[in-house]
Amino acid sequence: MSQTLVADAASTPGSIGLFDSGLGGLTVLRELKLSFPWESFTYLGDTARTPYGAKGAETVIRYSKECARFLSGCEIKLLVVACNTASSLALSHLAEECSFPVIGTVDPAVRTALGVSRNEKIGVIGTNATVKSGAYETALKRINPQVMVVSKPCPLFVPVVEEGMFDGTSAEKGIVKSLVEFYLSPLKESGVDTLVLGCTHYPLLLSAIAEYMGPEVNIVECSKAIAEDVRKLLPVSSSSGRNPQSRFFVTDEAARFSQLANIFLGSSQVQAVKVQMVD
Amino acid sequence: MSQTLVADAASTPGSIGLFDSGLGGLTVLRELKLSFPWESFTYLGDTARTPYGAKGAETVIRYSKECARFLSGCEIKLLVVACNTASSLALSHLAEECSFPVIGTVDPAVRTALGVSRNEKIGVIGTNATVKSGAYETALKRINPQVMVVSKPCPLFVPVVEEGMFDGTSAEKGIVKSLVEFYLSPLKESGVDTLVLGCTHYPLLLSAIAEYMGPEVNIVECSKAIAEDVRKLLPVSSSSGRNPQSRFFVTDEAARFSQLANIFLGSSQVQAVKVQMVD
Repeated sequence: MSQTLVADAASTPGSIGLFDSGLGGLTVLRELKLSFPWESFTYLGDTARTPYGAKGAETVIRYSKECARFLSGCEIKLLVVACNTASSLALSHLAEECSFPVIGTVDPAVRTALGVSRNEKIGVIGTNATVKSGAYETALKRINPQVMVVSKPCPLFVPVVEEGMFDGTSAEKGIVKSLVEFYLSPLKESGVDTLVLGCTHYPLLLSAIAEYMGPEVNIVECSKAIAEDVRKLLPVSSSSGRNPQSRFFVTDEAARFSQLANIFLGSSQVQAVKVQMVD
Repeated sequence: MSQTLVADAASTPGSIGLFDSGLGGLTVLRELKLSFPWESFTYLGDTARTPYGAKGAETVIRYSKECARFLSGCEIKLLVVACNTASSLALSHLAEECSFPVIGTVDPAVRTALGVSRNEKIGVIGTNATVKSGAYETALKRINPQVMVVSKPCPLFVPVVEEGMFDGTSAEKGIVKSLVEFYLSPLKESGVDTLVLGCTHYPLLLSAIAEYMGPEVNIVECSKAIAEDVRKLLPVSSSSGRNPQSRFFVTDEAARFSQLANIFLGSSQVQAVKVQMVD
C-alpha cells in the first residue's frame, strides 16, 4: 500500500477505524457519528475486491487482515469490523493480531435480537459466507439454546446496494421488491417474529425489507448495539481531539464511492482516497 | 502466487490460455474446445476479485496483467482474454507485455454484429466498465461510421450468473426475467436489429435474453468469432499433443467453481485448483 497515503492518514491518530468490503459499513459509521460526534473516524472500503460474501473463508480472512493492517498504520485506537462476513469469519484472527480493541457485528446484533424476540423464532439473513459460517446461529444458541434460528443467504442484496439501487427509480424499486420477496418468503412463512439484518449493506434496503415482513416482525440491525459496545470501551476523555473528522479510503475508484457515500450519509463531505492493498 | 502450482501447471506447456473474472470465460472455452478438440487449455478464473465490471480501469488493468503473468508462467502459446471488461480496458497493455499472441473479445464480436445487422442499429450490453470504456462503439464506428450504437450496462447480470441462476429454479428464472426486462427494455424500444452480448457471462442468460428481445433480433456472442481468430493463429500442426487436457485455476475456493463449471460445460471433469494472486 502507498506509504505516502498511510503517512497522510496518520495525521489523525487516535481515530476509530472501520472497514467493510464497500458501502455497507457506512450504516455503522452513520450510527457511530451520531453517538460520538466528538470522535474522528477512519473508514476503509475494500471496493477493489468487493463483495466478500460470495468468497471463501480463507480469502475473507486474508483480505480482513490486510484491511486491519492498513487501519493499524493509520494509528486507530479501536477497530470496528463493519462487515458481517469479516466478523463471522475473521474476528478472532483480527483480535489476535491487533494491539487495540476489535469489535464485530455478530454479538451486538444477537444481544439485540434476543432482547426483542417474544416467540424465540429468529430469522437471520446475510451473505453466503456469513450464513455458511453459522456464526449467528452459534452465538444465538450460546445465550438461549431454546431459540429457533432460520437462516437464509441473500447473495444479490450486496451487488444491488453497491449499484446504488437503495436510492433507486421506481423501476429499480420494483427489482428490489421482487428480490426481497424471492429471498424472504421462506422466512415470512416460518413465523419468525424477529429478523436480523446480518450484513451491514442490508439496512440500505430496510424499507423494502420491513414492508415485506410486516409491522409485527422486529427488524434488527447491529449498528445501535455496536455503538453501545464502543461506548463501554471509549470513555469521553479519550476523544480524538477538538476537530473531529472522518477520512475515507477505498481500494478501487474513489469518485463513485464518494458519490454514493454522500447520498447515503446525507452529506457532501466524503472525498475518498484510493489506496492499493498488497499482501 | 504459489510456485508449486505454477510448476505443476507448466506440465502442459503449449496450451491455449484463457482468463476471466469468474465463470463467464467458460462460454468461450466451450466453443474453443468444440473447434479445437486436439488442443489443451489452461483457464484462470480470478474468483477472489470477481466481478471486474463494477471496478475502475486502473484496477482492471492491474488484475488483468496479473492473470496474464500467471498464465505466462504456465507456458501457454496463445492468450484469449475471455472477459469483455478486461478486453475493453487492458488488451493493448497485455499485448505489449506478452511474448505470445493475445486475442480479445471486442473485435470478433464487432465483426459478427456488422455482418448480420441489416438496419445498422446495433445494441451492446455489458458491464459498467465495458460500456463506460466505449470500446464497442469505437470499434463498430471504425468499420462503419454510419452505424447507430445503443449501449446499456447490465451490472447485475454477472452476480446473477456467478450465483448459478443460469441453471435456476422457476422462482430464480422469474428474477432473471424481471432483470432482463428492466435492463433491455430501452434497447428493445430503440429498434436495434442486433444485440451484442458484450460480456462473456451473458450467454449463460441467453434464453431469457433471446426470448425477451424476440426472434427478429440477432443475438451476437463473441465465442464463435474468437474461434475464427484462434484458427488463423494456430495451424493444426501446432497441436498441444496427443493427450489434450483442460486445467482450471481459480483464486478463491475451487469447489464451488468446479461445481458450476461442470454444470455449464456438461462434464464432470472440472477440478479447479486454487492459487493466490499477489502483485
